Amino acid sequence: MSEMNAGSAGLQSSSLGDEIVGRINRLATMSETPEHLVRIFLTREHRAAADLILSWMRDAGMHAHLDAIGNVCGRYEGEVAGLPCLMLGSHYDTVRDAGRWDGPLGLITAISCVADLHKRGRRLPFAIEVIGFADEEGVRFASTLLGSRAVAGTFDESVLGVKDGAGISMRDALSQFGLDPDHIGAAARARSELLAYVELHIEQGPVLEGLNLPVGAVTAIAGATRLAASLTGMAGHAGTVPMLLRRDALAGAAECIVAIEQFCRTDEAGLVGTVGYIHAMPGATNVIPGQVSFTIDIRASSDAHRKLAVADIVRQIENISRRRKLELQLDITHENRTVPCAPWLKSQVSEAIAGEGYRVFELPSGAGHDGMAMIDIADVGMVFVRCRGGISHHPDEHVDAADVDAGARVLMRLIENFRPRDAAQ
Amino acid sequence: MSEMNAGSAGLQSSSLGDEIVGRINRLATMSETPEHLVRIFLTREHRAAADLILSWMRDAGMHAHLDAIGNVCGRYEGEVAGLPCLMLGSHYDTVRDAGRWDGPLGLITAISCVADLHKRGRRLPFAIEVIGFADEEGVRFASTLLGSRAVAGTFDESVLGVKDGAGISMRDALSQFGLDPDHIGAAARARSELLAYVELHIEQGPVLEGLNLPVGAVTAIAGATRLAASLTGMAGHAGTVPMLLRRDALAGAAECIVAIEQFCRTDEAGLVGTVGYIHAMPGATNVIPGQVSFTIDIRASSDAHRKLAVADIVRQIENISRRRKLELQLDITHENRTVPCAPWLKSQVSEAIAGEGYRVFELPSGAGHDGMAMIDIADVGMVFVRCRGGISHHPDEHVDAADVDAGARVLMRLIENFRPRDAAQ
Repeated sequence: MSEMNAGSAGLQSSSLGDEIVGRINRLATMSETPEHLVRIFLTREHRAAADLILSWMRDAGMHAHLDAIGNVCGRYEGEVAGLPCLMLGSHYDTVRDAGRWDGPLGLITAISCVADLHKRGRRLPFAIEVIGFADEEGVRFASTLLGSRAVAGTFDESVLGVKDGAGISMRDALSQFGLDPDHIGAAARARSELLAYVELHIEQGPVLEGLNLPVGAVTAIAGATRLAASLTGMAGHAGTVPMLLRRDALAGAAECIVAIEQFCRTDEAGLVGTVGYIHAMPGATNVIPGQVSFTIDIRASSDAHRKLAVADIVRQIENISRRRKLELQLDITHENRTVPCAPWLKSQVSEAIAGEGYRVFELPSGAGHDGMAMIDIADVGMVFVRCRGGISHHPDEHVDAADVDAGARVLMRLIENFRPRDAAQ
Repeated sequence: MSEMNAGSAGLQSSSLGDEIVGRINRLATMSETPEHLVRIFLTREHRAAADLILSWMRDAGMHAHLDAIGNVCGRYEGEVAGLPCLMLGSHYDTVRDAGRWDGPLGLITAISCVADLHKRGRRLPFAIEVIGFADEEGVRFASTLLGSRAVAGTFDESVLGVKDGAGISMRDALSQFGLDPDHIGAAARARSELLAYVELHIEQGPVLEGLNLPVGAVTAIAGATRLAASLTGMAGHAGTVPMLLRRDALAGAAECIVAIEQFCRTDEAGLVGTVGYIHAMPGATNVIPGQVSFTIDIRASSDAHRKLAVADIVRQIENISRRRKLELQLDITHENRTVPCAPWLKSQVSEAIAGEGYRVFELPSGAGHDGMAMIDIADVGMVFVRCRGGISHHPDEHVDAADVDAGARVLMRLIENFRPRDAAQ
């Protein structure tokens, strides 16, 4: 399989970007409400979207079906039937009041690339599969990556009993959607079937825009540690308690927030730390806060780096609490491992970017993606496409058509020049 | 009038503290709900409390009546009828879920002192009036000091149109209580009728407890400036926006909070600054806060000192906002002047404290009191009584019976040795 493509990308039409944008806009009409884009796992509009995507896959020359968890799966055979596949994809569910690009861009771009190959009658020495994961955001059942976990064989069947806000269990929702909750295992794929998993996605951050680059090569999906902190001091009258007798929980929390920011700002390896939520009690203008709770989200592009950082930050918070005589409760509420992109795949992504004439810039993904589950059955690669202002999970999420086209050309070049791991090394 | 009392306090019973505590407990049963003490301006339980207080005043040998705003007013004539009065008092309304001491202690102690004089047949060369102000806390109509403003002749008639949470206007509530809202002016007193206004009140702070002193002499009722601050940066994904590209409104607010605390801690004249309320938006663990609002409460024992401090703090917040590229909105929402206690009265309070064998300690009041309104028609003096843990506006508010007794003995000694301003100077 090693010498099949001599490097030329065969993209026929310069309007692939326009076609993709048209489909992005069409898919965005499949929403719970017309004013705000909401497409939640196993809803009516989710089903309508699945049917539309299946039709696009078939138009692109693929065999297509819905798998046991609701993923849309299309297969474009290689030079002979039954070859292992390069799997491409992203998700087709959304958050509430979402942007239209997060997920669909990668899925639709992959379908358009296959359609282009199909139009040219081009077959490759490997199959291509395109997958639209049914649930990545985890909005409905508060459990993310349901689609990719099912494919990776790591779906936790205990979540079938989880109920949504309306009291409907995932088991019942699957049945209503026309799926058999007892056969989710059938969605799982074997490692031997996949040569790699590659996802194109909007960056959801401002880095590429700041560098004036349309695309980037992802180094890793950053792991995250989330903590819940609670500081308890002593409430008191804002006028009657002298400063030196106070045990002000909010002043303590503020010192922690400044320390977390300072620690992360001085890190040279891209560590990020965020306090997104804070609540001060009792919360009155004229009362010294007696208790404050806040969250901490720490991400880094390696697990070791993140864990060291978390330990350092915890130590600082403990010191601040001790000095201020505040009781500290600090718990890890969530922990995701870092998923590195395979170096051999990242090299091919970089080659494709350079081949399209762009400067190669490598960056980690701070957001989570389906690769976090797919790593269990395949090496993972990712291509980032610039988005406006770094805005995502918001109606203002936007990608220029020229950047959509750039992303499509990079993905097309990557596909046509793809060498499986053994051949690549 | 200068030589009437040769310094001996004539308190007959060492159980005055017990009597006062008994009345405090009885008054605390007059509440909107039995579990939580709530006695709001112009309610049924407010009226029941007024009637009980009037009966105690009459038992103490006073002429007593309800004035046009609902204040309970008792007068104990001096050696001849119609002399100017030393006015004593506090308020009998409460906050919601209140303690029982804030207000009633000063009112009931004053009544008990007069009762003691009456029992002894003692008349002084001035009258004594005891007043229970109907509304100091301002819970019902969001406007404080209604009772003392009416007495001081500074009641703002425009507030008669203000409605409570149930849509009842103050005008209608007064009528339902049996008062004539068009005659509030009749509650106003002339400066010539008052020799001074003296209030005994719980400290509502931890200073006396920390010094192991049952009573203290108040230097001033600290003025307060309240500000509402809003910082606007840029919301973003907690994972995808590098630290150096962030405009995190909460990190900015945290730096402001630390700066305010630091500024006040290093002030040597008792400045206090509090951020009691904070709200970060959108408030999700994984989103950088794009906007944060918070309040600032600054108090000092002189207006000049407070205004300088506010200006310094505003300048620091402006600098922090500018450096972090955050938009700042900063408004003064409330401003109360400082009310100094008259030095000649404070001297007599200190003499009474020393006369009862306690070390004289002077401290400002950080909380507001009716003296803030009474200053417009009389010189003001205040006696503080220690409360447990500095806790107030809370069911755990507590004063030991021994301290109640100490406060009563100091007030009694103050009354019996009182020299009006002209005589005192």
